[in-house]
This record gives sequence, structure tokens and C-alpha cells, in this order.
Amino acid sequence: MEKIILTGDRPTGRLHIGHYVGSLRRRVELQNSGQFDKIFIMIADAQALTDNADNPEKVRQNIIEVAMDYMAAGLDPEKSTLFIQSQVSELTELTFFYMNLVTVQRLQRNPTVKQEMQLRGYSDEGADNKAGIPVGFFCYPISQAADITAFKATVVPVGEDQEPMLEQTREIVRKFNATYGETLVEPEIMLPDNAACMRLPGTDGKAKMSKSLGNCIYLSDSAEEVWNKVKGMYTDPLHLQVSDPGHVEGNTVFTYLDAFCKPEHFEKFRDCFIGKKVSFTFNSLDEVKDQYRAGGLGDMMIKKFLNEVLNDTLEPIRQRRHELEQNIPYVYEVLRKGSEVARAAAAETLADVKRAMKINYFDPGVLDQLIQEQSQKYQG
Amino acid sequence: MEKIILTGDRPTGRLHIGHYVGSLRRRVELQNSGQFDKIFIMIADAQALTDNADNPEKVRQNIIEVAMDYMAAGLDPEKSTLFIQSQVSELTELTFFYMNLVTVQRLQRNPTVKQEMQLRGYSDEGADNKAGIPVGFFCYPISQAADITAFKATVVPVGEDQEPMLEQTREIVRKFNATYGETLVEPEIMLPDNAACMRLPGTDGKAKMSKSLGNCIYLSDSAEEVWNKVKGMYTDPLHLQVSDPGHVEGNTVFTYLDAFCKPEHFEKFRDCFIGKKVSFTFNSLDEVKDQYRAGGLGDMMIKKFLNEVLNDTLEPIRQRRHELEQNIPYVYEVLRKGSEVARAAAAETLADVKRAMKINYFDPGVLDQLIQEQSQKYQG
Repeated sequence: MEKIILTGDRPTGRLHIGHYVGSLRRRVELQNSGQFDKIFIMIADAQALTDNADNPEKVRQNIIEVAMDYMAAGLDPEKSTLFIQSQVSELTELTFFYMNLVTVQRLQRNPTVKQEMQLRGYSDEGADNKAGIPVGFFCYPISQAADITAFKATVVPVGEDQEPMLEQTREIVRKFNATYGETLVEPEIMLPDNAACMRLPGTDGKAKMSKSLGNCIYLSDSAEEVWNKVKGMYTDPLHLQVSDPGHVEGNTVFTYLDAFCKPEHFEKFRDCFIGKKVSFTFNSLDEVKDQYRAGGLGDMMIKKFLNEVLNDTLEPIRQRRHELEQNIPYVYEVLRKGSEVARAAAAETLADVKRAMKINYFDPGVLDQLIQEQSQKYQG
Repeated sequence: MEKIILTGDRPTGRLHIGHYVGSLRRRVELQNSGQFDKIFIMIADAQALTDNADNPEKVRQNIIEVAMDYMAAGLDPEKSTLFIQSQVSELTELTFFYMNLVTVQRLQRNPTVKQEMQLRGYSDEGADNKAGIPVGFFCYPISQAADITAFKATVVPVGEDQEPMLEQTREIVRKFNATYGETLVEPEIMLPDNAACMRLPGTDGKAKMSKSLGNCIYLSDSAEEVWNKVKGMYTDPLHLQVSDPGHVEGNTVFTYLDAFCKPEHFEKFRDCFIGKKVSFTFNSLDEVKDQYRAGGLGDMMIKKFLNEVLNDTLEPIRQRRHELEQNIPYVYEVLRKGSEVARAAAAETLADVKRAMKINYFDPGVLDQLIQEQSQKYQG
């Protein structure tokens, strides 16, 4: 059996380093591992519209942004199919049929949906002070099942918080196959090993990096913007004097270093630790942490180091992005071609699904058989 | 503006005289009135699957039955477009987008949905002893809105019980147009005048004619089957002796006569009232009723009369149906062609919808504009 990946993002804003550390970096690794036969990367505009129905322009503007972030970060259209969800009509048709296999009650029990609803201020009680839940949003686990199964994905690399979503897909696959015969492929979740993927807090130390909180470092930020954001980062509020002992845990600068620092950085960016008053030589992040805990290592010094470390990853992305920005027609062409490839793949699955459900009345061969069957009924 | 009708039925069984009196007879009249530019008659297999997901064969078998009943009853493929819902993929795509414009709470408040749920033994409480509500079934008012708007229907002829459904469609139209600009047509409900359409009880006197209750007279029943069913009909349980005064209200035979009897029937079927012991001459249904109330008019006599009255309508339908049964390929060809016509109409609306939502990125002209717009952003 082919090994196929499906993954993607809602195009509601440019991608930030939280996306990079949480999923994008790993996707690039998986893409380049050569272990997968097909990789589909979906820009989920239709899903974004389920809770942005009144702001289609935001979604539309961000499709190209996400596409450029993807390619800048290393997703390669030669190796991965980048496509736009809304351009694959077949996905809505699959969603429609899968909706018959899931109960309203089952959706209401989905913890991810519950959490996402809370996040958006939707009420499941219909309380007057809260917005009602758009049906499209309520049903997005079913739409996700359509996305995953349309491409016969065997592997879906997501975080643990998405486990209930994938379980919903697996349930739909089992229900469909049990009802209509073996047709759909049951996907496996691919959870991250801890080192590879983590949830990055915002620059303000808040749990989640979010555009609305203004605490994100974007992949497309200039070196100057990154430095300004790093300078303003939340560290250890008790570390008032350089000489004070500092805390590493819960200190955002160290969390980011954990995510981005590589062994070669200590030699490469040794100048960061050479100050006017004190100087250090570090060979590992553990040594930096020990010194910070002991006291004497100032926040500005570690921020300068983090800035270099971040830019070491971000500068090549920034450069590739700049090239793409100068070649917008190429980016759209990638998406157009990718959407065509995706559509062909989804159309195959939809044909399988309709055949299994026996609603392919006018397909070649089927019509003749139907005519024969029904005619006999009235000649017998 | 064109006057366009959309209407249809779920293919879960052959059509009975309840369908005929409740809607089909009127559709034929509307079709032949020449007052409408287009008439779309939908065999709603996809909707039938929302609560028959585990029995696609039943739905599949009944498509041709419903189609033959339609044509036998007078729906003319030259005047009306007969089509199969599932063959118009565009309807599922419209449903998908409209789902963003309706809240879960709004659906839960829909009295028709509540009633239909009760009828099917679905629970909205998730009680263990009741089946959960399939999401597809829960969302069928949205799917109906897609059906109606896809064909730019201006008029939907339905019974009063369907008013909340049509109001849901009108709400979706208003929300869509307000959000994305004037695109969809708001349909009007066309309620029956009382004489034209009524809900016929079952032959057992129960409120609803239903296949599962076995109390239906089908359009395709033979004369013998009809006579057997009429003989067994529920009349007035207090009318024990022919000489007893009888009740007309709640007496199913009279309800059916109200629905089917025409002035010419009294002359045409006068023999029914000539008995061995007593004979009557009636010139109107009121006279028959008066005599029944006064006593002396036996149930068998009025049943014979009803049988003739029914067959006067049913015999031509039966004959046309028999011809169609001998020409199954023609019936499928009508459906295939009709579905093609319907698909072209729905595709136009879907293109309008995608244009309004601005998710038609790769349409001619649009892509060039997008490229220009985005390129400028990065050259400025």
C-alpha cells in the first residue's frame, strides 16, 4: 500500500514560528525523507470560511501568503502537492455523504470541537450573549474526514490535541466500509516525537502564539522586526538584576532556544556572549542555562543569542520568500497545478464512494445493468 | 424575472394516492397551466440517504418507481425537468457553503425538523434508548435551501407544514446576499388552496398514509388491489346496521370521496347505488352524505362508489405506467437527460456563488487580477 500524507493549514494569516516548530519543520523533514509516495498539503480556505464566512477577503488574501511561507520553509512543489481546498469540489460531496454516518450527538462529544468552540466564543447552549455555532464549523471534523480520505491518506502528522479529530475520521471510514463495503483507507495518526514538534508560546509568554494577541514572530518578518520582538520578549520576571539567579523554566527565551538552537550555534554566535563587563564561552545550551540559573548572565545577552539563532533558520526562509514574492505568477501556477492534481485524486475516491453507495446510476455499464434489472421486474 | 418551480420527493417507495392528492395532482396542473418558465422535479435520493444510509438499495430501487409514477400521473418530460438529486454534485457544494450561514441552534429550533425527528425516533437529547440524529438528516433544511436556490426557484409549492423549511431557505438567501452581495433568489412558498391539496389519511383511518403502516393505496396498484383495500377501509365504527345513522366526519371513505369525486361521477357510476333491497339516485356528494347521515345507505354501497371514483383517476395512470414499465430504457433516458439539464442550471448558480464568495481564484480574468493585486503588494 502506498504511504500517503495529508496535512495543511487554514489560510487566516501568515505563518509564524509556532507553525514552523509545531508542524511545518517536520513536514519538510518528512517530505525529504523519501519515505512517502505522495504528500498532499492543503490550504484549507473552505475550512477557514466555516468561521470566517463574513470575511472571505481575509481568507483569499492569505492563501498566497501561506503558499509562500510553505515554499520558503522548504515544501517543494516537485515533491509535495500544494493545493487549495475549495478548488476540489469533490471534498464537499464526500462531506455531504459522510454526514449521514455521524450523529449530532457524536460531534457534540468531540473534545477538540468543544475546545475550538470555546476559543471562538461559540456557545453550545445557545446563550444569548454568545454567538451560535455555524453548522459548517460544527461539522468540520466530517469535512476533515473527507479531506483525509479523499487522498487515501495513510498518515496524518498532527499534534496530540488533534487525536479526537483523527479518531472521528477513522470511525467514519469504518462505518462507511461496514455499510457500503471496503472502500476507504483508515488513516494512522503520526504523533510528533517531543524534540521534533512542540507548541511554542507567544513572545509575551502566553500559552499560544496568536495573531490576535500580537505575540507572533512570522516567518516573513524582517531581521529588524524579529530583533524588535525578541528584545521585547517575556523572560523571568524575578530576574531583575543581571547578577540575580534566573529561572529557565517558563522563560520564553529559553523555550525558543530549546526549539531552535543547534550545537554549531555556540561557535558560530560566540560573539553574543562577549560583553563589555563580562564574557562567557558556552558549548551547549545546558551550559547557558546553568549560568543563567547561577546569575550573572543578562537577558540582553541571551536575547542577542536567540536573535542570531532564530535568524539562522529564518534568513534562508526570508530570502526564498523574497524571491517568491517577486514571482507571484509562479506561486499561483504551483497552486493551480497542485489543485488539478488533488482534484484528480479526489475524483477517483469520489467515484469509488459513489460506486460503493450505488448512486453511480449513469456510469458506463451500470446503466445497462440497472435497465436490465428493472425491465426484468416488469416482464416476470 | 422567470417563474421557476422546484419540488420533488424522496424515493423511498412507490407513490400513493396521498402523494397524488397532497402534491402530485397540483404539480401536473401547475405544469399544464403554462404560467411557469421552468419546472424542476427532483427525485431526492441524496436526501433519502440522510436517514436511509444503511439501505441504499431501497433508495436505488425506488428512483425508477417514483419516476414512472410521476410520468404516469401526468408530469411530462417535455414540460418539466425530471432529475436525480445525487447526479447534481453542485448541490452538495452549495450545501457546504450555506452550512456556514446557519447556526446549530437555528436548526434545532426548526419545528419541521423537530417533528420529523420525532417521527423517526431520533432523540435530540442523546438518550440511550433512542437513535442519535444523523448529521445529514439534521442539516436537510440547508440541503433543501441548496436545492431550491440552485435552480433559482421563485416558487415552491408545498404544504403548510413545510413553511418553516422554506423560511430557513429564505433566511439563508438573505444572509448570503447580505454577506457576499446580491446573488441568490428568494423563493416564495405557494400554499395549496384547500380544495386542491389535502392530507389523505390511511385506509385504516390513521392520520398519515405510510408504507410501514400498510395503509396506502398506490398509484401503481391494480384495480383488484384497490378494490381489496377499499373493501377493508375504515368507515364509521358506530355504523353497525345499514339502517343506523352514519357519521361522515372522520369517515375515511368520505374523506377520499371529498378528494377524488367529480360531478360527472354520479351519472357515470349511478349503478353503484342500485342495490337488491334499496336504490338511490344521487346528484352530488352532499346528497350521498345526507343519506348516509340519515341511515339506510350501507358502507358497501359507498365503497363500491369510491372504488369506481378512484379507478376513474387511477386507470389512466395505471395504463400509462404499464406502458412505461415496458419501456424502462426510456424512463432512465428521461432521468439522465433531466439530470444533465439540472446540472447545467445548478452549475451556473454555483459559479455565481463562488464568484460572490471570491473563491473562484482560477477563473479566467480572476487569476490575472489576483496576480496583479498580490504582485503590487510586494513591489510597493
